[in-house]
Amino acid sequence: MRALRFNAPFDVTVVDSPMPVIVDARDAIVRVAATCVCGSDLWYFRGDNPRDAGSVIGHECIGEVVDVGTDVHNVRVGDFVVVPFLASCGECRLCRDGQLQSCIVAAEAGIFSTQGAQAEYVRTPLADGSLVVVPGGRPTDDLLPHLLAISDVMATGYHSAVAAGVQSGHTVAVVGDGAVGLSGVLAARMMGAERIIALSRHADRQAIATSFGATDIVAARGEEAVAEVLALTQGIGADAVLECVGTEESMTTAFGIARPGATVGFVGLPHDVVAPIGRMFRHNIALAGGVAPSRFYTPALIEAVLAGEITPGDVCDRRMTLEELPTGYVEMNERRAIKAWATP
Amino acid sequence: MRALRFNAPFDVTVVDSPMPVIVDARDAIVRVAATCVCGSDLWYFRGDNPRDAGSVIGHECIGEVVDVGTDVHNVRVGDFVVVPFLASCGECRLCRDGQLQSCIVAAEAGIFSTQGAQAEYVRTPLADGSLVVVPGGRPTDDLLPHLLAISDVMATGYHSAVAAGVQSGHTVAVVGDGAVGLSGVLAARMMGAERIIALSRHADRQAIATSFGATDIVAARGEEAVAEVLALTQGIGADAVLECVGTEESMTTAFGIARPGATVGFVGLPHDVVAPIGRMFRHNIALAGGVAPSRFYTPALIEAVLAGEITPGDVCDRRMTLEELPTGYVEMNERRAIKAWATP
Repeated sequence: MRALRFNAPFDVTVVDSPMPVIVDARDAIVRVAATCVCGSDLWYFRGDNPRDAGSVIGHECIGEVVDVGTDVHNVRVGDFVVVPFLASCGECRLCRDGQLQSCIVAAEAGIFSTQGAQAEYVRTPLADGSLVVVPGGRPTDDLLPHLLAISDVMATGYHSAVAAGVQSGHTVAVVGDGAVGLSGVLAARMMGAERIIALSRHADRQAIATSFGATDIVAARGEEAVAEVLALTQGIGADAVLECVGTEESMTTAFGIARPGATVGFVGLPHDVVAPIGRMFRHNIALAGGVAPSRFYTPALIEAVLAGEITPGDVCDRRMTLEELPTGYVEMNERRAIKAWATP
Repeated sequence: MRALRFNAPFDVTVVDSPMPVIVDARDAIVRVAATCVCGSDLWYFRGDNPRDAGSVIGHECIGEVVDVGTDVHNVRVGDFVVVPFLASCGECRLCRDGQLQSCIVAAEAGIFSTQGAQAEYVRTPLADGSLVVVPGGRPTDDLLPHLLAISDVMATGYHSAVAAGVQSGHTVAVVGDGAVGLSGVLAARMMGAERIIALSRHADRQAIATSFGATDIVAARGEEAVAEVLALTQGIGADAVLECVGTEESMTTAFGIARPGATVGFVGLPHDVVAPIGRMFRHNIALAGGVAPSRFYTPALIEAVLAGEITPGDVCDRRMTLEELPTGYVEMNERRAIKAWATP
């Protein structure tokens, strides 16, 4: 089969790769109907996070189950599934509490997420606890990007809003106009936010933010952005802040625009980030979030997509063939594309 | 009048000091019935926090109102009041939201807390929004330490439990066996915690923790303490953790014993503390809390004391005269006393 291989920073190529096979009785094999490049893949691409050369990359996809291990009972061959990026058993104490990111069984097995999803086929571990069947079988083509987005970015954006405690009537600020930040805007709208301030400098992303429910756009950055958001919120700040980047600057901005008593919901993989603990202490601003327990939100998000209530796949703005997908890394890294996706 | 003057680190003396007077129409003057030394006073005493020489020290007291400014309407001369350490107007947008620590009026006036409470009389700013009248007039002597504790440590300990999201049935761990940590144990019991693990190395403090509701005592520190708490919680950690110290070690311990999805409620004034953001992210452990909006909890805590439900003043283990109170700094600094208090 064809698959994207990570060779070295700035070097991802499409190669012939062995078909994945069941290696654990809890595995399933999925024929990938759609896959995409994640912002976190770019950390490898840029060499900011180390990654072994030669591995098939990618952890977001949807597709059809073509094989299952002998211990898999919740999904069957022929099911069309969303593959949440995070693998979890669904049955341990922490999974039952919704803390899928800390699944005891996955930790014992040394599993974190599905790997190798930018390919024609992928092996998905802990299939029973992880995969979510899309009701009605293979969806129409127009639904593919929206279901694909649920496998990571939409679930992650949703988690940022949950972590930040977004409530009906809130003024919510979203730091980051990548696919996750835009998904956070959509999630805040789903939760009834009255006002959604999106921090975005790019016209194409601003347009999506607005279509997702943003009521205000702040194009400035850093201290200027803080001043603008405070001006929009009677000098007090937002009731909830979604931090969807993971850099020192984005975190500083997030806390700068959070009102006293608010929570910053963070889902951007932190890189050299220090929480401003003095300001947190002085004004009772909390920090919550982290790795999204994506599977937890997946069933409800699938329903919302199938009901036509949300179109989270609007962030997938560059459709390619699998052969072209390495170009997607370049375009995303240069911020010419929000999210490159392919239908192998 | 007699008052404790901060001269320099390790040098606090009782001196004759001018009687405080109304300087703002929102002030009240309180004749101090009981006052005490706070753990945060020790930061000045040790020279860890700078403080101007010559100022009267102290911010915790109870007593009788003897004068009020022309804009004071909620308290009257003769009222017996608890003076919450934090001054707040009670009417601005943030006060109405319960975010008293960020009171807009206090910030504009440059006021944070009552100052000069270790004295016979004290001026209390923003009296209408800050002071809380004790029903029934001057209480009996045996109630004085319990009401006094509400002015800071009990409200602060309570806040740590609120911030950590303690719920009925929870397993709660409390880091810190100072007066605030012990108050946190008591607060967790009030909120229905099923199991309360107190980290304490001192027999006298362990005894108070147990009387306040601790079900388990862990005397170890650092990594050993983490291992012991994990062993007590099926390897998973506590449902809620109260961080009542404010050092790097205590914060690290707090996050080490917090289960995935838990919140660390922190009220220890942070000194060179860095939140372990990698662990927070990986396991969705939140950090919430900060300066306690003490006035917010004061009425209910007074009721609980008057009803005999709680005895938070048990942490006031060294009763002195005002003349002796400088010795209280030494004893507390050497951890020979938990909390020194005086009835001027």
